[in-house]
Amino acid sequence: FSSHQPINSTEKACMLRPLEAPFRYLFGPGPSNVPPRILAAGGRPIIGHMHSEMFGIMNDIKKGIQYAFQTSNNMTLAMSGSGHTAMECAVFNIVEPGESVLVAINGIWGERVAEIAERMGAKVHTLFKTPGGHFTNAEIEQALAKHKPVLFFLAHGESSSGLVHPVDGVGDICHKYNCLLLVDSVASLGAAPLLMDQQNIDILYTGSQKALNAPPGTAPISFSERACHKMFNRKTKPVSYLLDMTHLSNYWGNDGKPERKYHHTGPVSGFFALRESLAILAEMGLENSWSHHTEVAEYLWKGLEDLGLKLFIKDKDLRLPSVTTIAIPEGYDWKELLAYIMKHHQIEFTGGLGPSVGMVLRIGLMGYNCNKANAAMALAALEDALKQCRKSKA
Amino acid sequence: FSSHQPINSTEKACMLRPLEAPFRYLFGPGPSNVPPRILAAGGRPIIGHMHSEMFGIMNDIKKGIQYAFQTSNNMTLAMSGSGHTAMECAVFNIVEPGESVLVAINGIWGERVAEIAERMGAKVHTLFKTPGGHFTNAEIEQALAKHKPVLFFLAHGESSSGLVHPVDGVGDICHKYNCLLLVDSVASLGAAPLLMDQQNIDILYTGSQKALNAPPGTAPISFSERACHKMFNRKTKPVSYLLDMTHLSNYWGNDGKPERKYHHTGPVSGFFALRESLAILAEMGLENSWSHHTEVAEYLWKGLEDLGLKLFIKDKDLRLPSVTTIAIPEGYDWKELLAYIMKHHQIEFTGGLGPSVGMVLRIGLMGYNCNKANAAMALAALEDALKQCRKSKA
Repeated sequence: FSSHQPINSTEKACMLRPLEAPFRYLFGPGPSNVPPRILAAGGRPIIGHMHSEMFGIMNDIKKGIQYAFQTSNNMTLAMSGSGHTAMECAVFNIVEPGESVLVAINGIWGERVAEIAERMGAKVHTLFKTPGGHFTNAEIEQALAKHKPVLFFLAHGESSSGLVHPVDGVGDICHKYNCLLLVDSVASLGAAPLLMDQQNIDILYTGSQKALNAPPGTAPISFSERACHKMFNRKTKPVSYLLDMTHLSNYWGNDGKPERKYHHTGPVSGFFALRESLAILAEMGLENSWSHHTEVAEYLWKGLEDLGLKLFIKDKDLRLPSVTTIAIPEGYDWKELLAYIMKHHQIEFTGGLGPSVGMVLRIGLMGYNCNKANAAMALAALEDALKQCRKSKA
Repeated sequence: FSSHQPINSTEKACMLRPLEAPFRYLFGPGPSNVPPRILAAGGRPIIGHMHSEMFGIMNDIKKGIQYAFQTSNNMTLAMSGSGHTAMECAVFNIVEPGESVLVAINGIWGERVAEIAERMGAKVHTLFKTPGGHFTNAEIEQALAKHKPVLFFLAHGESSSGLVHPVDGVGDICHKYNCLLLVDSVASLGAAPLLMDQQNIDILYTGSQKALNAPPGTAPISFSERACHKMFNRKTKPVSYLLDMTHLSNYWGNDGKPERKYHHTGPVSGFFALRESLAILAEMGLENSWSHHTEVAEYLWKGLEDLGLKLFIKDKDLRLPSVTTIAIPEGYDWKELLAYIMKHHQIEFTGGLGPSVGMVLRIGLMGYNCNKANAAMALAALEDALKQCRKSKA
């Protein structure tokens, strides 16, 4: 290799230290702590992404998502990526350039979908509320009638504001206007009731790292037959080869073809972990998971109010059980509160996100993290911080 | 939840079995076996994707990639996805719709880049050879002069044919024609000499699951200053929000801004594993890794020839040390050979990929898997299969 002499650089020296990562209570809006059982699944020796046993595991994941989503959709799979990958996949595959899309924006997720749809050449119309607000079915119907979109986006779990959005009836209204309903349940799946088929949702996606407690990096998604009809009868190819559902549906064995062809190399360890997380949800049962999240959330809400704090979402029925938003208390710097709690209690809470920055503090207790002991720990940490961080003291 | 009653379905029952995955010797073109040390790193309790310690780990990854790529490029990071994600990221960010791209196709990877560039609206020109062929610098220069592309793609490790493509001088020729050089080193990094800065490569990417031996799902990538100048002075936004380097460079702390903003949730466990894999490469040293791969490959090649097999790439200097291609021996069904070896030896070899399907068998010994004992095991399995699977016997 005389002509190819590498430089032994400071970059190399920097790598000769061991990996270090402290223990943290991940009580923000996600990722949440990964239980040992899921870590162990993700840490198993891998097999090939195209081995028959891997296809068996992917089939299990498909069943697990069908259960978690409450759908019998054949076109159910997991994306090799985070929730944003699922978001882009949905928009890229369903919408063709020049078609109209309607996006409900009441926090960051609608903003993101609007940005994604604009970039791929859709005509983007928006329905807007400030964080914490929600849309009535009448408002949605009016906008659908006006803009005639092919796709309507709604975040079920608006984690930036702490809102769980009503979904009943929205699918029917969309279908009346020949529009497909796309719902984001990244922050709500497993924590708040959502029934894809009964509620006539056409495309539903979630993330692995919230109530499912798997590491981030995979994202369940499902498409109704109506959605499949639209996306598999396009005039143009989706702009992304990587996210093209023609190929992904073959990779997941959903297209009825006898042979699965190589498309990309899926995250094998991530799929092991995702399968385990879906198994845990199936063992617990959805009803139990929903009622458990509500019970712990109500305990947390009462404790927060007892500390004199104000919950950002007034209406209990609109509060996301997995992510609680607190109005930033007067006399405090929210960044200082968060830094104090992280430093002295090893607990992550977070501030707002996108349009809710500076408006809220957020506490997430999801899946494995969701129990009263953790809620009590979170409340004690917050109580301590409220004593120590008052501005007049500083 | 009276109005939201989930269905307890067969899907749920299907998940109440434990995860099962057999042990396999992954001696195909990747993913390769993940050593216990990297599995352990990936199985550690996670921290938040925006914690300061996570940014520290990402900084380490950046240093580790700079060493592995032999570059001092500031714009160095890992994609949250497989090698295809890096491929799309490079094309989406560098090229604007209507611009010309030149793609060298001598196997599947060029085909994929051409497909990706076409979908995003580039004018795609190709240089073509059948699998096993390579391009002279004169041929490349002629095509650059003719098509005046903004980007030229070349696969350094053409794993579908087993070819390692010469790169010396190609960067200089590209720059003479005001074109950027994009190189795929997914299958070659750590196995065959490649020096990003010395060889004037503008965009280089690889995968985590080959000689680096991490699980699939992350993909190192680096951009030269010349590449940054092009991608950060675009008239249009890249079509993908998720892969927009404006946002990714901020997430990786490469844009010089004091604050890192939330873009997407990176695969925390995948980054832990990737950091460990880059540390192992730094500890071993690039020169050692290159010479080790060559030594084991030469041992394998001799053993294959001793079995009477023909290597698909005749010129030793053009053989990829990480992935060896064998011409399918006469009198055998290649699928039957592979199935026999998998069943009786728990070893994965593979057939061709894309245009090389039906032309070759492929044996990959990469990183952790790359040693003479494994090469001997591979040869013994192949010898057994050649005895048992001859067609006239069946």
